[in-house]
Amino acid sequence: MTESPEHRRLIVAGTGIAGLSAAIYAARSNNDPLVLEGVEPGGQLTLTTDVANYPGFPDGIAGPDLVNNMKEQATQFGADVDHGVVVDVDDSTRPFTVELRDGTRYTCDAFIAASGASARTLGVPGEDELMGYGLSTCATCDGAFFRDEEMLVVGGGDAAMEEASFLTKFASTVHIAHRREEFRAEDYWIDRVNEQVDEGDIEIHRNTELLEIHGSPEEGVDHVTLAEHPEGHPSEKLDDADTRSYDFDVGAVFYAIGHTPNAEYLDGTGVATDEEGYIITQGGRGGGQTATDVEGIFGAGDVVDFHYQQAATAGGMGVKAALDADDYLEDEARAAAGNEVEAAADDD
Amino acid sequence: MTESPEHRRLIVAGTGIAGLSAAIYAARSNNDPLVLEGVEPGGQLTLTTDVANYPGFPDGIAGPDLVNNMKEQATQFGADVDHGVVVDVDDSTRPFTVELRDGTRYTCDAFIAASGASARTLGVPGEDELMGYGLSTCATCDGAFFRDEEMLVVGGGDAAMEEASFLTKFASTVHIAHRREEFRAEDYWIDRVNEQVDEGDIEIHRNTELLEIHGSPEEGVDHVTLAEHPEGHPSEKLDDADTRSYDFDVGAVFYAIGHTPNAEYLDGTGVATDEEGYIITQGGRGGGQTATDVEGIFGAGDVVDFHYQQAATAGGMGVKAALDADDYLEDEARAAAGNEVEAAADDD
Repeated sequence: MTESPEHRRLIVAGTGIAGLSAAIYAARSNNDPLVLEGVEPGGQLTLTTDVANYPGFPDGIAGPDLVNNMKEQATQFGADVDHGVVVDVDDSTRPFTVELRDGTRYTCDAFIAASGASARTLGVPGEDELMGYGLSTCATCDGAFFRDEEMLVVGGGDAAMEEASFLTKFASTVHIAHRREEFRAEDYWIDRVNEQVDEGDIEIHRNTELLEIHGSPEEGVDHVTLAEHPEGHPSEKLDDADTRSYDFDVGAVFYAIGHTPNAEYLDGTGVATDEEGYIITQGGRGGGQTATDVEGIFGAGDVVDFHYQQAATAGGMGVKAALDADDYLEDEARAAAGNEVEAAADDD
Repeated sequence: MTESPEHRRLIVAGTGIAGLSAAIYAARSNNDPLVLEGVEPGGQLTLTTDVANYPGFPDGIAGPDLVNNMKEQATQFGADVDHGVVVDVDDSTRPFTVELRDGTRYTCDAFIAASGASARTLGVPGEDELMGYGLSTCATCDGAFFRDEEMLVVGGGDAAMEEASFLTKFASTVHIAHRREEFRAEDYWIDRVNEQVDEGDIEIHRNTELLEIHGSPEEGVDHVTLAEHPEGHPSEKLDDADTRSYDFDVGAVFYAIGHTPNAEYLDGTGVATDEEGYIITQGGRGGGQTATDVEGIFGAGDVVDFHYQQAATAGGMGVKAALDADDYLEDEARAAAGNEVEAAADDD
């Protein structure tokens, strides 16, 4: 005999900035949200030591502190924050059914997908074997384990610059391999990295890609194979005479090459995603900007936004999702009340 | 002889949450922003005593403190925040020309409109004469001046509930006149107001509108004329037999009936606005969401958003505007560099 699943008015998947911002507003709207942490509680920001650009903290704030502040704020207004990884949402009946990895099932009237995005990998040889043994997707988490080693950061955006800059504290030299000539990063970070290049702490390898990581779980990373082509994207031009492949000694490798949205649990629902898997929300003007193609399911944060990906933008979208969900729940409640009145009238 | 105007890379109109959030990011992107305060420095949030729902502050934060924090954060990264009310933007030539009320002119390569929205009025008799003399659009600013008076709050949204609740500290009774039966406000506020109704501190007048305010600047507000119709919107049904008009004694009146966007200075440019005057931005997915119909002019905050209007949503949009402006400025710089290279090549 199966116990009938607990019913919640609103479930929020994700406790990053988007999920917690949604939870704060949803709790204040009396929508009694259950907020599920997922595999990376606190989301991407917990990997950031110092958040300097979240508006409101002139002295900066540590990523985990900002997350904890929001969690406290949400629970204070009545949100339940709990462990749980959503693996399936069934939108074929109302209420929705939400299934967690441990088999727990809930039903809910509305659902906010704020499950973020996870670090992307390259799929090169050595990667699976060495992940966690010299290869990492989080410099701020793992940098200190490789003191005085040569380190390689792969990527060309803000995250790559920030991680490279951070790693100079530990590395003998930080090498940045970027597959193109130009960096996508904020000027602030490019300037900071260039200063550290001048000081000899960082070395930039432009138009360069990582082909293989060599080492063993026991001994860690020993060296890597890189390729360079003067016009960039060398791995697509390995047979080109201008492509130079070479081995390079490093003791640790950090990936900072972007993210993949965590929305697989919505497969089979009517929620539309783009070709990379990011949830498509309504956007536009006025209310309902975070609505997906399924009424009652909303999206916010990095699982939707592949472009801005800032704490402030994720927070703003989380707030919108909570307000949109509240409008939806109130409309549903009014419609249900109306039906009851009609049903009562029919009885007369 | 006219001095040639100072040139700035980026001008931000407005120092509310949207403008300051944009300034933080713009300064970090080395876009050297000049941020102009307008007529209401700090924007609408300076009128709020306690902001409980801005994500990151579990104990809440005073509106003016949050604004000051952001201002400090922006100036720390290099933003110039200055007095100045923008009265005109000329987009017929590049760079843009921006004119201030005091006659000062600037040129700029990019412009962010974050000039917010101002409190709306009803246009009823007595209003112009008594504004500031018993009639106010800001309960938190002016409530304490009318201790132990009967007070009337006009409106049915969050702001009306918050202001009514706040005014119970001072009023003998707070009366809320709302033109419809149902309130638009957040449940949190409706619950709080209902508790105060139970305690006898607040009295709700549904389906009721303010027709006239009586009094004098010397003696302040003496009484008001109200109208009530069982189906709401009585002022549109004054000849209806079910409409009841009556005089009602109050010593102060507070409007909380929404806002009008401050975008008149963009009249004559190609920036599109809706029929209420809110700036239309591109929206959608990916970059450029804050772009207006004029390349290089961006919009953020309450001058765009007529729906969500929260600190967190305004901040998120300000950040997007700064990132969009930075993309635009970098594209322009690259295009200019390309032209120079071409020009040099032509010289050969």
